[in-house]
Amino acid sequence: VVNILINGKPGDTISALDRGLHYGDGVFETLKVVRGHVMFMEQHLQRLLKGCERLRIPPPKPEVLIEETNALVGDEEKAVLKIIITRGRGGRGYRLPENEHGTRIIIRYAFPDYPQAYYRYGVILRLCDMRISANPALAGIKHLNRLEQVLARSEWQDESIAEGLMMDHKDNIIEGTMSNIFVVQQDRLVTPNVKTSGVAGIIRQQVLNAAQDLGISHDISEVKKEDLLTADEVFLTNSLIGIWPVKHLVHISNQKNVKISYKIGPITGQLTQELSKEEVRQSQTGSMK
Amino acid sequence: VVNILINGKPGDTISALDRGLHYGDGVFETLKVVRGHVMFMEQHLQRLLKGCERLRIPPPKPEVLIEETNALVGDEEKAVLKIIITRGRGGRGYRLPENEHGTRIIIRYAFPDYPQAYYRYGVILRLCDMRISANPALAGIKHLNRLEQVLARSEWQDESIAEGLMMDHKDNIIEGTMSNIFVVQQDRLVTPNVKTSGVAGIIRQQVLNAAQDLGISHDISEVKKEDLLTADEVFLTNSLIGIWPVKHLVHISNQKNVKISYKIGPITGQLTQELSKEEVRQSQTGSMK
Repeated sequence: VVNILINGKPGDTISALDRGLHYGDGVFETLKVVRGHVMFMEQHLQRLLKGCERLRIPPPKPEVLIEETNALVGDEEKAVLKIIITRGRGGRGYRLPENEHGTRIIIRYAFPDYPQAYYRYGVILRLCDMRISANPALAGIKHLNRLEQVLARSEWQDESIAEGLMMDHKDNIIEGTMSNIFVVQQDRLVTPNVKTSGVAGIIRQQVLNAAQDLGISHDISEVKKEDLLTADEVFLTNSLIGIWPVKHLVHISNQKNVKISYKIGPITGQLTQELSKEEVRQSQTGSMK
Repeated sequence: VVNILINGKPGDTISALDRGLHYGDGVFETLKVVRGHVMFMEQHLQRLLKGCERLRIPPPKPEVLIEETNALVGDEEKAVLKIIITRGRGGRGYRLPENEHGTRIIIRYAFPDYPQAYYRYGVILRLCDMRISANPALAGIKHLNRLEQVLARSEWQDESIAEGLMMDHKDNIIEGTMSNIFVVQQDRLVTPNVKTSGVAGIIRQQVLNAAQDLGISHDISEVKKEDLLTADEVFLTNSLIGIWPVKHLVHISNQKNVKISYKIGPITGQLTQELSKEEVRQSQTGSMK
């Protein structure tokens, strides 16, 4: 069952002239809802507004978005809300319309049925052929130009592979198709910078904050394929999955399939625990409701 | 007045779950209609189908597209048709839907009111700050991920500037926000390759064909900013404008506004004449009707 609000009203269609369709001219957020509480709503809002600012899209009013997301949370134990903000209807051509009225779309989806084994034993991650392109003007924000992720995800059908990892054209590891990546090497936690490619994930930031609080040595820097070969722990993050430990990375090297294995180590464990605590806290207090 | 066919039926909305909106997961074509005849329909169709193939989108049936575009041509002297093909509705997430039914959108717009002076005296072209990113998997085709063009076009408001020129991150000149570029240096015609960025324009190809027929020395290769400083003639092409000679290129160099001027030379003239002849031919014979 899908529930949708478009500019605050129930509906399931948008204008065929919307610039979100014509150009991917907009931003989005994917929110986890637990027992009617939206997780990290403030952080999602901040990123959404930052994305609007970067793209010069008139930002929605935060109080309106909060009201509308709360109206859509539903009564399931868990749910997903997706917020899309586009520049709205436009004439033909790239020029920004003069009287801009953005389009606000909020959709509720059923929460995905992730296997418990993903959390307990880890997931299989695949290195994709599709590269992620570089443009500082679009990096960090969650915009609607997602063809590279679509093509990367289309590379595998094997149900046992949970996620695909993408590099830029300089062989830097950037992120998964739908997640950020963290690597632990000699007790040091590292995640790629998202200055030229990639999305600055909400859970990525939460993990960095938790590492700070827990006194775990951490860094944002370039990550190369070689770093994955020598990593002790690897994990993925996004707003829905939280933290998925990676048990295997599969990739092709010299025309051969290569499998690298990781343990689910203490740093992944500590950070997972911290994140769970925060989720419990938010789903009980519901500070944003 | 806008007229729209969606999957063959009159309408003005699409599903809020369409992947064209969520990911820019689709391709488009912009067609010039002259007295009820679609110019270069076969070439547009070929590029559209190539784009679908590259993105693994189920292609529309050519005969259906031809029928629907012909139904929408209208009775104005000139009109614009835009065809959008998306992967259609999908669930949440990048994975390709199992039963794909693409969405077919055809929109008729009024023909833009381009000043006659653009053709007679040339246009002013501006070098944009926004760069175009590189990805061979997406280069050449006309996909819906157009944020870089939107941001480039948002850089200027000055009505006297007709188009903006974009470079990639290696300082290669690639194309205009909505057009391809040609440069004439010492009687040799050059246009940038579109192997890693840019769109393989229909008129671009027509110009290359005409150069071949007319015995004009021509090449597809890298074009650098320096080539623009020494060019004799520069012109822009797309399906609606045809050929626009460039009279000035404005750019910023060492914090100063610099203006480079070009003549409207014989090569631009010959090619414009050839293209006009072909348009007259197509608007009279109407081979695709």
